[in-house]
Amino acid sequence: MVVFPNRQIVHIKGEVTLDLKIVFFIIAGVGVSLLAFLFVSWLYMWIKKQPSDNPKIAEMGKYIRQGAMTFLKKEYIILAKFAGVVSLFIFVFLPKPIWQDNLANTIGDHIGVVVAYILGNVFSGIAGYIGITIATVANIKTAEAAKQGIRPSFLCGFRGGAVMGLAVVGASLLGIGLAYLVFMATENSLLMLGFSFGASSLALFAKAGGGIFTKTADISADLVGKVELGIPEDDPRNPAVIADNVGDNVGDVAGMGADLFDSNVAAMTAALVMAANLGSAGDIKKNTMMIFAFASIGLLSSLIGIFLARMGKKDDPTLALNTSTYITTGLFLGLSAAATAIFKFSWRVWGASTLGLLVGVLIGIVTDYFTNDTMRPVQNVAKASQSGPAFTILSGVSYGFLSVLPAMIGIAVSALGAFYLCVPLGEGYGMFGISMSAVGMLSIVGMIISNDAYGPIVDNARGLAEMGGLGDEVLERADSLDSAGNTVKAITKGFAIGAAGLTVIALLGAFMSEVNEAAEALGLDKISGFDIVDPLVFFGLIIGAAVPAVFSAMQILGVDRNAQRMVKEIHRQFDEIPGLKEGKEGVIPEYDKCIVIATHGAIRELIPAGLFAIIITLVVGFVGGVRAMGGFLTGNIVSGLLLALFMSNSGGLWDNSKKYIEAGNVGGKGSEAHKAAVVGDTVGDPFKDTAGPSINTQITVVSLVASLMGALFLAYSIIN
Amino acid sequence: MVVFPNRQIVHIKGEVTLDLKIVFFIIAGVGVSLLAFLFVSWLYMWIKKQPSDNPKIAEMGKYIRQGAMTFLKKEYIILAKFAGVVSLFIFVFLPKPIWQDNLANTIGDHIGVVVAYILGNVFSGIAGYIGITIATVANIKTAEAAKQGIRPSFLCGFRGGAVMGLAVVGASLLGIGLAYLVFMATENSLLMLGFSFGASSLALFAKAGGGIFTKTADISADLVGKVELGIPEDDPRNPAVIADNVGDNVGDVAGMGADLFDSNVAAMTAALVMAANLGSAGDIKKNTMMIFAFASIGLLSSLIGIFLARMGKKDDPTLALNTSTYITTGLFLGLSAAATAIFKFSWRVWGASTLGLLVGVLIGIVTDYFTNDTMRPVQNVAKASQSGPAFTILSGVSYGFLSVLPAMIGIAVSALGAFYLCVPLGEGYGMFGISMSAVGMLSIVGMIISNDAYGPIVDNARGLAEMGGLGDEVLERADSLDSAGNTVKAITKGFAIGAAGLTVIALLGAFMSEVNEAAEALGLDKISGFDIVDPLVFFGLIIGAAVPAVFSAMQILGVDRNAQRMVKEIHRQFDEIPGLKEGKEGVIPEYDKCIVIATHGAIRELIPAGLFAIIITLVVGFVGGVRAMGGFLTGNIVSGLLLALFMSNSGGLWDNSKKYIEAGNVGGKGSEAHKAAVVGDTVGDPFKDTAGPSINTQITVVSLVASLMGALFLAYSIIN
Repeated sequence: MVVFPNRQIVHIKGEVTLDLKIVFFIIAGVGVSLLAFLFVSWLYMWIKKQPSDNPKIAEMGKYIRQGAMTFLKKEYIILAKFAGVVSLFIFVFLPKPIWQDNLANTIGDHIGVVVAYILGNVFSGIAGYIGITIATVANIKTAEAAKQGIRPSFLCGFRGGAVMGLAVVGASLLGIGLAYLVFMATENSLLMLGFSFGASSLALFAKAGGGIFTKTADISADLVGKVELGIPEDDPRNPAVIADNVGDNVGDVAGMGADLFDSNVAAMTAALVMAANLGSAGDIKKNTMMIFAFASIGLLSSLIGIFLARMGKKDDPTLALNTSTYITTGLFLGLSAAATAIFKFSWRVWGASTLGLLVGVLIGIVTDYFTNDTMRPVQNVAKASQSGPAFTILSGVSYGFLSVLPAMIGIAVSALGAFYLCVPLGEGYGMFGISMSAVGMLSIVGMIISNDAYGPIVDNARGLAEMGGLGDEVLERADSLDSAGNTVKAITKGFAIGAAGLTVIALLGAFMSEVNEAAEALGLDKISGFDIVDPLVFFGLIIGAAVPAVFSAMQILGVDRNAQRMVKEIHRQFDEIPGLKEGKEGVIPEYDKCIVIATHGAIRELIPAGLFAIIITLVVGFVGGVRAMGGFLTGNIVSGLLLALFMSNSGGLWDNSKKYIEAGNVGGKGSEAHKAAVVGDTVGDPFKDTAGPSINTQITVVSLVASLMGALFLAYSIIN
Repeated sequence: MVVFPNRQIVHIKGEVTLDLKIVFFIIAGVGVSLLAFLFVSWLYMWIKKQPSDNPKIAEMGKYIRQGAMTFLKKEYIILAKFAGVVSLFIFVFLPKPIWQDNLANTIGDHIGVVVAYILGNVFSGIAGYIGITIATVANIKTAEAAKQGIRPSFLCGFRGGAVMGLAVVGASLLGIGLAYLVFMATENSLLMLGFSFGASSLALFAKAGGGIFTKTADISADLVGKVELGIPEDDPRNPAVIADNVGDNVGDVAGMGADLFDSNVAAMTAALVMAANLGSAGDIKKNTMMIFAFASIGLLSSLIGIFLARMGKKDDPTLALNTSTYITTGLFLGLSAAATAIFKFSWRVWGASTLGLLVGVLIGIVTDYFTNDTMRPVQNVAKASQSGPAFTILSGVSYGFLSVLPAMIGIAVSALGAFYLCVPLGEGYGMFGISMSAVGMLSIVGMIISNDAYGPIVDNARGLAEMGGLGDEVLERADSLDSAGNTVKAITKGFAIGAAGLTVIALLGAFMSEVNEAAEALGLDKISGFDIVDPLVFFGLIIGAAVPAVFSAMQILGVDRNAQRMVKEIHRQFDEIPGLKEGKEGVIPEYDKCIVIATHGAIRELIPAGLFAIIITLVVGFVGGVRAMGGFLTGNIVSGLLLALFMSNSGGLWDNSKKYIEAGNVGGKGSEAHKAAVVGDTVGDPFKDTAGPSINTQITVVSLVASLMGALFLAYSIIN
């Protein structure tokens, strides 16, 4: 066994020191973050003071808020325990095992990584908490505003979502800025990875837990309510209706926020770690400044885009959402070009980030094609449903598989393009270009999250309008807002998966940087890459490819088990509570029982899948060493992208096929085709809202674990 | 653009010449092949002279045989045209473009590759034809023999399958032996690849065409017959019943035979091409002898295993099938060890092939766990079906995903183990070890195919027994034989996928050999491997990973479209033919109409998916060059393995969940759970019998195209 090297290895090249220019850019970034938080407070006030007077809505809204908060509290308690255990491990093993370390001198480094890890958790958790707090107020206000008309209702819903978007990006920029300041002062690069790992591990569990909660409730409510009893979607008689609405908040607001917080932090971390190893001291300075500048500009552009968002004269919410996205994109491109000109950044790097952003938009458009009900795939699946549910599934799976190709080509082309754009800048710049392409794709993430969180808020609002008995006209407005949310959501997901793909490619570079510094310190040969025909690399590759499949399966089985429990409870309530089924005045179901089932089930199921991903990474690393790990990460990325795209797109497609039939096509509501489409939608639910989007987080977590443990894998693996 | 190098590049190292010892081993191999064919003739006679007297069965059997032959004829005509076009391309471009070649001197080489390609097609086609000829006699005899008892019936079915097994392996060994003799005489290594490519391209289309045919008929027959009308599985009133039985023959006998013919040829080709480049002239001789020796021993062991197969006193057909597999495995291990000792082959290489065989058995056992109805996965899916079809699908997908992990680990470990076992033998031996591990896994392929082809024969026999009205006792016997076929089939598929995985890893090595010879001739740097962090490799990797998904989708959509057409036709017949539904004496449906629909649909749908796979390979190769191609092949292998395992296993699991419920569990036949399970089975049908197993062939074809075109990619790609 190799003796562990001196502490040198955990350092990025010596050139990074407290540099005033960099500090200035970080402070600018922090300033934009604070501005975002100011704006968030203003939005919060604005939403709070919107009128609301319906007591039924207020009551139901309270149930939802309480349910969401109860779940969040339980989830955070479990995650705090988990983080405690991980912190202990981190303290013992990183930067290097304490029994090989002169702890008296280096205890600061050990504590530093732990603190960074904890802060990564905390920042992400706070952003999620803020998002949920406002979302569970905004849903009520949006429902009430729909009485006035679609435009004020849209504004309420959109601004509620914007709080989440700005809070997530503000918190991530703030956190990264602070972490980088400390890093410059202490030269401990694991600080950055530690912070990012904190964000990732929270996201891994928040996404899994929230995803399992939301789909348990959604599926169960639909299955008994819509399918068996034929009562409407948000009928207050349904015992699972509150749990369903709670689920929208904890899964789609908090979970998705944690996911994109994680992607954003990971993309910036990968870029910053690579930048700190590139070229001369002057280059390092300039590139680091550029990363912070672009991130700040992205947040600023989102802020302006959000501020300007209004529904135009056409009363078309999809148009309003897309317009603000395009405005933000345009602003970012213009402002980042200006910054590049003023501060003399490299135009090639700017090109890489622009390429990433444009490919992101392109992936969004492709996703839209496969999931929009005006296009052939959705319509063909609806038609196939006439022959029964098996054909709904088969055709949906097929289109889901087909949808993978253009997105994968997009990611491949943008990685290749960014690489070749930047490679003339010097050694290592190719990979840096890829990471900047991810940063570019995520630059407008504030806007993306706003659009995404708008979805569950208007979905909730629709439910509350139904429960509050606001009448058909109001429901129609709410429906129109809701359906726009679904369309935009599909685009957002394509974006998120594409960005995660580019980020983890960049993290592969970060992993190699970490390993090579360790190799240098150990006096071993540097690794120039991971050769596919090296059997250790191939070994890792094959096993890594299986991980996202298993990870998804564990979550789907969790939803499956949990939904079966909840269906039983709903049946029990309808059987045992007299007058419930008939809707007798004053009889209300025991909403809390369903919330408890969803909560307990989610908490119970969220840990195993996440642990599996982390543990198998450690096993492969300590068995096969860094070469197996390089293969493992690659296999994981490739199959992760494949499965995430497949599941998200087929899920969205089934959802919209059902809606397409409900709109009166191919037999309309209640037809055999509709029943088949409901089966498709139920299958698609955990695909698109539980397993599919969690894969992003899973591949990021695994990449970060590998980077953090790179030096240990090098020193302690069984095979070398 | 680089000028194409001299013809040197298509040669394997000069050491390979007509060597008497090698010739002796090849002749021994050819001898064993001829022995196998003698045995095939004896089996054919034996089956023919078994008694049969039921006129209804004879009539129905004739319909099936005619339908199968009609389809096969149409399919072969289309494939002959396709092969004609490909031959023209091969002639023009290989060994090198004719405009750069001195055609007067090298026309022999050009024609040689074309002839090898055509012979690859023809040998595989003949084996398929023999298999179908006997299978459509054996089904009748098996049905009739069931009147005497289960044991004679088993023997009929098994020996019918054995004809296919021995014909396929005999033809492949014969073909490879002859091709290698000519190769030694002419030193044109593309001969071997050409032969293998011929086998692969036939398999690609035969598997897709047969798979689409069989599932179109199966799904349609079940959907209208069992689900809508509630008539039994093989009721002669059902217009699609004959098409369904024809499908078993063209899909599961001919298609699957072509698939394993292809795998076997590809594995041997990869090993032979690599062996010809390893070490000294003496080494080359010894390793080549070893490959032929092991292949001959495998065929001989299968032959003995088949000859000894009898059903014991327990009347348990599964036990009988598994016992003969284990006998064959034991025989191969013993005889190959003896050969290694006698001819002083390397024990390390023997170890690699043994490792492959044992991992194959292990994968079979894992597959059995996930698809056997005495195990938890199948039972849990059956239980989940009580909540409706959505849960059947969700839980089945989940277990399908989970089943991927142990098989992938098995493949990864056997590749790694074989590599490290052989690497001390010298440079390049690691990869050779992997290819020998594939040869080992496929050594008992004769036995495997026999077991597999047994399935459709007894399935047909069961149908004929039902149609001939042979009574409940006979039907029960037929059922018992049929269900054993299903169990064994799942194991076979695991085997086939594992072997394909190892083979294509080996073909990656063959691709590199080809490219490096070209590079040497061009004066370019040799490629030492494919580095994952090379953006071109990564580019290929991501696109390659998407290909199996798209390939599967195209086939499933084909089945989907085709089944919808056939369902319409079945409805028409039931509506328009008076007395058909009621089963009036003398009223028979128009079976041929359904056969025509299945045939036309399959022919129409079989080409696009195959063309897509070949064309995207050419595009990536000519755009990104050999580095992109290395990544492309790897991505293709990894995602191909993942999806093939997932689809085969989840399909088998759904099938058996349905059967488990039909056996009286979880509500039994006609319950809601049963209806849900039927949906699962219908989804699983094209998964496990069309798309899943075709992926094997797809990845092999793509690997061979890459090897054949390697030199051209190197010389003519846009990016380099």
